[in-house]
Amino acid sequence: MKRRNFIKNTALIGATTAAATTALSSPALAQSKKKWIAVSAFGKAGLLGQALDGFANSVGEMSAGRLTIDTYHAGELVAPFEAIDAVQSGTAQMGYGAPYYWTGKSDSISFVACMPFGLNVQEQNAWCYYGGGIDLADKTAYNPLGLKFLPMGNTGNQMGGWYRKEVNTVADLQGLKFRMPGLGGEILKTFGTNVINLPGSEVLAALTSGAIDGTEWIGPAADLGSGLYKVCKNYYYPGWHEPATILDSFYDLKEWEALDDDLQMIVKQAAANTNLMVLSRFQAANNTALQTLINEHDVNLAPYSDELIKAIGERATTVIPELAQKSADATELYNNLVTFRKTMVQWSGYSEGNFMNKRIAASFQTI
Amino acid sequence: MKRRNFIKNTALIGATTAAATTALSSPALAQSKKKWIAVSAFGKAGLLGQALDGFANSVGEMSAGRLTIDTYHAGELVAPFEAIDAVQSGTAQMGYGAPYYWTGKSDSISFVACMPFGLNVQEQNAWCYYGGGIDLADKTAYNPLGLKFLPMGNTGNQMGGWYRKEVNTVADLQGLKFRMPGLGGEILKTFGTNVINLPGSEVLAALTSGAIDGTEWIGPAADLGSGLYKVCKNYYYPGWHEPATILDSFYDLKEWEALDDDLQMIVKQAAANTNLMVLSRFQAANNTALQTLINEHDVNLAPYSDELIKAIGERATTVIPELAQKSADATELYNNLVTFRKTMVQWSGYSEGNFMNKRIAASFQTI
Repeated sequence: MKRRNFIKNTALIGATTAAATTALSSPALAQSKKKWIAVSAFGKAGLLGQALDGFANSVGEMSAGRLTIDTYHAGELVAPFEAIDAVQSGTAQMGYGAPYYWTGKSDSISFVACMPFGLNVQEQNAWCYYGGGIDLADKTAYNPLGLKFLPMGNTGNQMGGWYRKEVNTVADLQGLKFRMPGLGGEILKTFGTNVINLPGSEVLAALTSGAIDGTEWIGPAADLGSGLYKVCKNYYYPGWHEPATILDSFYDLKEWEALDDDLQMIVKQAAANTNLMVLSRFQAANNTALQTLINEHDVNLAPYSDELIKAIGERATTVIPELAQKSADATELYNNLVTFRKTMVQWSGYSEGNFMNKRIAASFQTI
Repeated sequence: MKRRNFIKNTALIGATTAAATTALSSPALAQSKKKWIAVSAFGKAGLLGQALDGFANSVGEMSAGRLTIDTYHAGELVAPFEAIDAVQSGTAQMGYGAPYYWTGKSDSISFVACMPFGLNVQEQNAWCYYGGGIDLADKTAYNPLGLKFLPMGNTGNQMGGWYRKEVNTVADLQGLKFRMPGLGGEILKTFGTNVINLPGSEVLAALTSGAIDGTEWIGPAADLGSGLYKVCKNYYYPGWHEPATILDSFYDLKEWEALDDDLQMIVKQAAANTNLMVLSRFQAANNTALQTLINEHDVNLAPYSDELIKAIGERATTVIPELAQKSADATELYNNLVTFRKTMVQWSGYSEGNFMNKRIAASFQTI
């Protein structure tokens, strides 16, 4: 029996049996206490490690200890990219990472993270919570893996990435050894880039050894701490490949379905809260970190050239739909996202995009 | 004693006194049950009425009934703009509205809502949660009124507003009777506009009677339901006056401070969750509503003219700092926001703003 039903039923018994209810409630509450293990693809020390710990603490506190979650960060229990295996095998009950880390498991799951030139963060959240996105991601990507999905963080618009040498032309992409997960990496492959996927914890070593020539990571706040500037000095924007990447929490589907309604609500709200807090923390810290990178670490900040943006954009229009043909699930997810994107691009053109262009006019800078 | 301390203390008693603990816990839990009344400035039927009800339900469910909140929407217990008085007088324990509705109570509180040409929604949330915004709003605006503040919704970038007749020049603003709360209205006053503030429930009647010539409201999703198109056909963008308006939940400060730590966390997370959900729901619905307004209700969608935007922007740079001189609290809040805005405008220029301009290039439209 779910706890809520238990409470409803005992309430029906009425005040005269209060003593009996009290006698019952202690073992019933003890029975419903759960202890979960969470495994993460992200390191403990960084913002995303703190986000997972904060999530776990708040679930424990809000549920008054009825659901407690022990967190294991990257490498503490399993290797970063094995977080999904740990949940599928029952070693852990939940995992934390980014959907495109699990591309080997699913042809559709990368589309949940973001699409090159796709939705920005407001639009991603609109899709998730009021565009049917969470349900569709479950149907086409997570449920087939025995998992339940909830968004639990967003990077906002990322930086384009770090390069040892300048990249200005399409020719510069050829033969480049570059770390880029997800759909963006699939586009670069068609330009002859040697695309490599590595967990964040291994990127600096790979750059230092020369195994890779460059990498995208997240944005200034996360990138400063990762020390990538020690090897690469060319830092490009904007993150065409990751306009706003959803970080995923995923749960053993059977554990999720067995959870009492009120505990499901607590987990849902804690995940949504973490979603907003991760974005807000990145946003609040990004510019200060960027200025530190420029002024203290001699980083060259530059926009991608028009040539590159134009060429990559054109290539995206053929590569992404092709990738969406790999399975019926991927096709369904992609088609839904494309339709949603069209209406969002139109709305954002009248609102956010238009406003931001007006705001940067010189006369408003003194406010 | 706070409940968390009670649990800690009883845990220290140890397992041998489990029976005594059980006997104690029933009256202790009963004692700590609280029932709050919430009053809102918004109508029950709309998205914001549903948001408040959803918030109250989730607090009740997550707290397993230890804190239940009865909601009274606009006019159900008090008039919309009297919500703050109801909380200050102890009739209600929390209220819901928009900070600029309480301008009569505080010279600084309008700055909490938003600033003309100010922060967008990502930036507002970054300021609130990781830029010290909530604490500063409490210090400079809410605490002096005996209240605690938490953001509980954001409209995102609003539409510019509804006008019976076209407005193209500065001369068109003179003598206009226009509803616009907050700092934007203060700017319009300097152009000779007769600025009026009315709760949403009274706007359509005022338009119909000719008491006002136009109004700003929120955005298409909310505006469609309000029926403003029945009187006004000219619908302008972007919302220079409200780039991203924070909706406020506010709590009797003594009630808030008396709340157990875990109940404070539940309320905080439910409010942050509602903050994200309100924005996401508006975003998901806005463009469909906008197309309905255009195609089924003959609404003329138009950008504000460059002349108007330029003139209003220049005026903002003198009017807003003057308003910030009204009190030390307002000055402190304004100075903080201006500093935060500078770093955000810089970062958004490299990220969101830059990306959105790249994305609207024609070649990406087919994705």
